[in-house]
Formats: sequence, structure tokens, C-alpha cells
Amino acid sequence: MERTMYFLDQKDMPTHWYNIQADLPEPLPPLLHPGTKEPTRLPPPLFPEACNEQEFSKERWIEIPEEVQEIYRTWRPTVLHRARRLEKALDTPAKIFFKYEGTSQAGSHKPNTAVAQAYYAKKQGAKRMTTETGAGQWGSALSMGCMFFGLELKVYMVKVSYNQKPYRRILMETWGANCVPSPSTDTEIGRKILAENPDSPGSLGIAISEAIEDALNRDDTFYSIGSVVNHVLLHQTIVGEETRKQMEMADAYPDIIVGCIGGGSNFAGQFLPWIRDKISGKKPDMRIICVEPMAAPSLTKGPYTWDYGDIAGLAPIVKMYTLGHTFIPSPIHAGGLRYHGMAPIICHLYKLGLVEARAEYQIPVFEAGVKFARTEGIITAPEPCHDLKVTIDEALKCREAGESKTILIAHSGHGHFDLAAYDEYLSGKLKDYEYPEEKVREALAELPKVPSGI
Amino acid sequence: MERTMYFLDQKDMPTHWYNIQADLPEPLPPLLHPGTKEPTRLPPPLFPEACNEQEFSKERWIEIPEEVQEIYRTWRPTVLHRARRLEKALDTPAKIFFKYEGTSQAGSHKPNTAVAQAYYAKKQGAKRMTTETGAGQWGSALSMGCMFFGLELKVYMVKVSYNQKPYRRILMETWGANCVPSPSTDTEIGRKILAENPDSPGSLGIAISEAIEDALNRDDTFYSIGSVVNHVLLHQTIVGEETRKQMEMADAYPDIIVGCIGGGSNFAGQFLPWIRDKISGKKPDMRIICVEPMAAPSLTKGPYTWDYGDIAGLAPIVKMYTLGHTFIPSPIHAGGLRYHGMAPIICHLYKLGLVEARAEYQIPVFEAGVKFARTEGIITAPEPCHDLKVTIDEALKCREAGESKTILIAHSGHGHFDLAAYDEYLSGKLKDYEYPEEKVREALAELPKVPSGI
Repeated sequence: MERTMYFLDQKDMPTHWYNIQADLPEPLPPLLHPGTKEPTRLPPPLFPEACNEQEFSKERWIEIPEEVQEIYRTWRPTVLHRARRLEKALDTPAKIFFKYEGTSQAGSHKPNTAVAQAYYAKKQGAKRMTTETGAGQWGSALSMGCMFFGLELKVYMVKVSYNQKPYRRILMETWGANCVPSPSTDTEIGRKILAENPDSPGSLGIAISEAIEDALNRDDTFYSIGSVVNHVLLHQTIVGEETRKQMEMADAYPDIIVGCIGGGSNFAGQFLPWIRDKISGKKPDMRIICVEPMAAPSLTKGPYTWDYGDIAGLAPIVKMYTLGHTFIPSPIHAGGLRYHGMAPIICHLYKLGLVEARAEYQIPVFEAGVKFARTEGIITAPEPCHDLKVTIDEALKCREAGESKTILIAHSGHGHFDLAAYDEYLSGKLKDYEYPEEKVREALAELPKVPSGI
Repeated sequence: MERTMYFLDQKDMPTHWYNIQADLPEPLPPLLHPGTKEPTRLPPPLFPEACNEQEFSKERWIEIPEEVQEIYRTWRPTVLHRARRLEKALDTPAKIFFKYEGTSQAGSHKPNTAVAQAYYAKKQGAKRMTTETGAGQWGSALSMGCMFFGLELKVYMVKVSYNQKPYRRILMETWGANCVPSPSTDTEIGRKILAENPDSPGSLGIAISEAIEDALNRDDTFYSIGSVVNHVLLHQTIVGEETRKQMEMADAYPDIIVGCIGGGSNFAGQFLPWIRDKISGKKPDMRIICVEPMAAPSLTKGPYTWDYGDIAGLAPIVKMYTLGHTFIPSPIHAGGLRYHGMAPIICHLYKLGLVEARAEYQIPVFEAGVKFARTEGIITAPEPCHDLKVTIDEALKCREAGESKTILIAHSGHGHFDLAAYDEYLSGKLKDYEYPEEKVREALAELPKVPSGI
């Protein structure tokens, strides 16, 4: 029997998140306050104190609260698969594994942090949370997280997505969240924008501003973010820590780890628990390949500089590879990868030469997704289809070189809500997007001015 | 730690399907030829010979071919969950387990038989299969099955669903199937209907006729069916056989097993492996509750008599509880339960008093689905929401009686493609359907006349 699934017993589920900040060769640059541009913590009334502490902690292992573990156990541990049928179809000597987060109730890795953030908010006495969402992936995960802890949630969903993509909105409502199209009449900034332009289609920047204004105006409410920041990446390390145990069950160790990056939390959740072996010299030749879309290639095309984490310029200024916070990526189907910057931890590791990056076009990415669907059966979300493209490339290189490398994919979830994208690809209507050099040049001209010497 | 998921190692995956025909207290009534009305086998050119043999076999254990096991291992064994959060929310001493088939790539139990049927077709030299589909659940599962064995598939999809529900069509196409709206111009019957009525919305009866005509016209093509018949129920017993091993891991044994029935294959796949303990006297008080929709309550309202298995009257005549083969159920969201009859095996067991039945309205069914979503997180397809309604009723009875019974749910899959139904329910727009007594009376007047003495 050729084993293809590795189950981790719940009694062996990791009890701690792994904090890379304990093992970085150099510390992370500071956060800067968006107003004063001085080093700062996360804006304190916005996030639960526990998240703020985790953001800067140097503790290597941070215990997962039992209440969070209990919720994790409604879908975790997730399965590690070996893609034997893909290997055979590619006629490659490479061994291809994928850790699959698509079996969470929300269909992705996002609940790993949503549940933790909701727990910390509840523990600090909150009754409500707010967040923004574009296509709805993050909003639905946080809806589930808040449901588990009996918190109300208000999701400001970009109006054009709210109207075009009702399924994710219904998911949020089924879990009990209140989802409104943004701009809304529920905030001052929303009312102001609607007064100027009643037909505004909304934007992520506006939605963030509404969610933050709402949270700042109420003592019982925290704001929540789904990627980019350190504590979110920390919560996602449950994925890689599980995978380490499962790879051991498979008697395997990855030579190459592949994952897509938008804000960076999916891939970091998988590779951070492995990169410590590269930093420590135990596995110095391990390759970690970050895959970004050609429509928003921050690592491969952007400068490493200070920029706002959000489009609205309300969030802290961070040092990162960025295309400029005012840059709006083209509307590729992988909505979760449409971010102007990148998680500071990933940028830092890239600067240190510990991870590599590659940018991919949309059409070959869907070609890889269909190849995977027609071998392993799984319909992959457009974001992790990027992983599949690079995995197939690497597996074919192994065939040419006759090398039996072990490739591990950070497969963040299914594409059941993204079938319109497959339809476009299969019917030949899918368009690709070049790297928009001119738009990036304009956006980079609007970077914040930061005092020298930081 | 309170364990909530029971994983079965792939080396312990059952290697045999369980055939209830070996253990029935009385044999099943025969099939009758739709033309001659004499006892018959399955129409031989339509189905692979192996399926025909399994249809009538009395062997207790039928080996799952290694090639089928290999494909099963891309998603099997599936997980047995304990619904501890639902138990707590109901404050019940009952223990609630659910075997969850929603993690298959198609999102339901259907691939268990799709893969087996595609294998037997391929083994007998076929190049193609045909089938009909309504909302697309079965068509998509067979698309996946045929993809795994390199078979072409032509799916005749009821035109109104083809236009209204593009997502399942895209699933089929992503797996490589050719899906056409029925009536189509590709068959004689399709052309005839279109000539008479170019705007025909189609029906399951027309789609079946097209799929059968197509298969009969080509030597390289078999027809396939997704429920009702014995060999389909047989293939589904992998579910219950896995569950037996997992319940043993949980040190539990079901007092009550609950499942929805449309054609009957999901629930039979779970309960047939258990009912042998009831037949043998090992567990005589086990209750097996079949849940049907009030819009198509064949067991609870229909007579046990001879009727066509299909609306078109092309399939064999079987003895079953039926509302009449010309009966068209109201358009409830649980499309998979809209069937006029019921699997002959389930009807036979119901007649023998070995299983019980209950009919449920649509609105309380969705109420139960939302309760489950807001405790366990899983968004359940409308069909198994019927299970949840009855499970909650039984768990509340346990609370009143102070009895710690063990309830096992045959949870057939997720509702990611059914969110519009949740939207209707949550917004208060969902309508219910009474039992349509008059329509049933009319349909029962059209039962086939069968010679006495059979």
C-alpha cells in the first residue's frame, strides 16, 4: 500500500506556536507610528494586549491557550498528503507533499489566527470585533472565530465585492456576523464618502478606515487583521509544527518548501517552523520559495523601505518590500495576494537571503491548478495555485536532473468559491496582467518620509 | 484533552465492501424488465458486468479492487467527529458522533461509488460514460471518477439547473467532463423535444433518457447511476465500515443512527454495516432513523408496490415505497432528496421493521443546520441538515429522560454550493412545502401494471 495521507492524532497536536523572533540572526526593524513616525507598539486600543505582546515577544514557544486548542480540535490537526498521482503524471523522481488547510470549516488556513484573536479579545472583556474584507475570505474566517467565542462581529465588505460575491457574505451571516457594504452609513468616514459619491464602489482602504473608526469609537470592540503582522504569522505556525511531526511519520524532510504570499501568513505558518533548521545550520541547503503574483510582486520588484501597512495610511509604518501603499493591484482572481507590501518577517528573511522569491503570471498558475485537479482531484483556490505552478516547475527540474528531492507545498485551501475563475480559464477568456511598472513608480513616489537614523 | 476527531490510518482502511444481501432475513424482491415485466438483470449493455453481478450477489464481503482503493486513498479514510460543542449547546447527556464525507474532493459521499463504477467501466474496455444530473452533485462526482481512470464523460444536465447553477457545471469541466444542457441536440430524444418546444427547461426524466440513448448507441460507453440500486449502496458501505473501526477507537457504539434518504445511498452506506448486528441479535434495540423531506416522503406516505425506478419509465421496475414515478417533488433546496421512490434495499428493511422513518419540513431543517454551523462551524448541505434536525430532537429527548445515548450521524457533505439556500432561510424568505396529497394520488394512478404472482 502506498500511503498518501498522514494523520496526526489529536493528542499529538502541537501545544505551542513557534516564534521566529527568538531565532532571527538579526532583530526585526521597529514599527513606526503613522503620525509621529517614532518607534511604537501596535495601536493599543485597537488590538487585544495579548496580541500586542506577541507582536514583539522574543519567547521561542508561546503556549496555545487550551480554549483555542479546543476550537482548533473541531478541524485540526489537518492532513499531510503525498501527491503520488501528480508525481506519476509528471514522471518525476521528486516526492511531493502538501499540507492541506482546505478542510477547515471556512475552507482555508485563516481560522488559525481568527480563533486566537477572537479568544484574546473575549478574554480581555470585549463584546465585539470589527474587520474589513475584500472578497470575503478573511471576513468569513473571523466570523467563525467570533461565533466560537460568542462575540459580535461587524464586517465592512468592499461594496463591489459585496454585490458581486454574495456567497462569502452568506457564510459570514450563517456564522452570525453582521456584514455591511462599505462605504456604509454606519461610520463618519463612510457617510462622508457616500455624500460625495453615493455610487462609490468602495475599496479596501475605505473598509479598513471604517472598521478602525468603529473599533476606536467603542470600548467593547477590538479591530482585527488577517495577515502581515507578526502575531498573525505566529498563530499560523500551528500548520508547520503539525507538518514537522507528519513529515517525520512519512520519514521525509523537505529540500524545497513552496508557498504563495499575499500578506504572507499562510506560507510563513508553514515555513517558519522549518527555517530554524536553516538558520541553525542543521539544513543549510533547504530552499524556501515564496511565490507572488506578477500583478503584485513586492519581493521581486519592490524596494526594501518604510511604508504604511495599509492603503489608508492609518496603520503603523513598517520596513518591507513594497510597491507603495497607494498601489492598487490589477484584479487577478487570487484576491488574497493583492497586497502592496509583505509581512515584515518575510521581508527581513528575504533581505537576509534565507528565502527566495518568484513572481508568476495568472494563466500558467491556473494551468497548474487544473493539472492538480486532474491528478489529485482537489480544486485549489487561485492563491495556492501559485504554489502548484512552482512545484511542477521544480519537480520537472528534478526529472531532468534525475534528483529525488522532497518538495513540501503550503496548500492553503480549496477553490469552491472561486469556480468562476476556473470557468474563465477553461473557456480561454482569462487575461493576464503584466507588471505595472508605471503605476508602481507613481505609488513609490508617495512613500512616507521617515526620519533618518531609524 | 477532549478528543473530537478520530482518524483511521490508511493501512486500516477497509478492503471489502459489505453486502447486506448475505444477511437479509428474507431475500429482496426481483427486478422486473420495464417492457416485459418479467424478472430481469440490470439492462446488460448499459452497466458494466461487474456492477450487474454485484447487484444480485449474495457474497457477504466483496473485495474493493486495489485500483479503487488507491483512488479512495486520495481522500479516505474520512474523519469521524464527536460534536462536543453541539452536545454542550443542547445541554444533553447524549454523545453525538458524525462521520463526515464533506472532505472528499467533490464535497460529498458520491465519489465512493463514482470511482468504483468508472473503474469497472474502464476494466471492461469502455472509453466513455454517460449520466444525467439535476443540480450537479452526482455529475460532478462522476466527473471526478472518470478523470481518475482517463474515461471521457458526457453529463446531461437539466437545462434549468445548467443555467441557474453554473458552479457545479464548472466543477465537472475542471475535471474534464463534457456537460451539456438537456434537452440537447446530441440525441434523438433531445432533438425531438427541442423541435416541439425549443424553450423546454428540461427535466430529470429527459436527461436520463438522453444519457441512456447515448450509452446504448455506442459500444464504448456505459451509463451510470448515482443512487438507489444495490451496487451503488454496496460501494457506499466503505463509509460505515470505516465508522465501525473509528467508533471502536472512541470506545462507543451507536444506539441511534440518523441519516437523510433521497435515493438512499448515503444513509445505507453508513447503516448497512451496523444493521447486521441488529439482524443477528447482537444489538436488537439499535434504532435506525431514515429522514426524508416532507416534499417527497416515500417511506412515510407511499405504498409498498411495483414502480419504475426512473421518471421516464426506461429503468427496471422495482418493489419500493413510492409516490409514483411521474410524481415531481416541489423544488426544495435539498435537491438530492427529491426522488419519488427509495432504494429497494431500504424499502425492504423498512417493510421488515428494521429501520424507521420520519419526514421533516424544510424550515426546521435549516434551523438545525444553522445551529450546527454555530456550534461545530461546519456549513452542512441541505440534505444532511435533515439528519441534524432529527439528531437534535433525539438529543433533547435524552436530556429530558436523562439518558446518555450514543447518536451517530451519516453526514454526507458540506453546503458550500448551497449558500443561496442559507441566505433564503436567514432572510426569512424560505418557504415550506406541505405533503402534496393530490399530486401523489394522481401519480399513483400511473403505476405500471405488473402480472400477479410476482
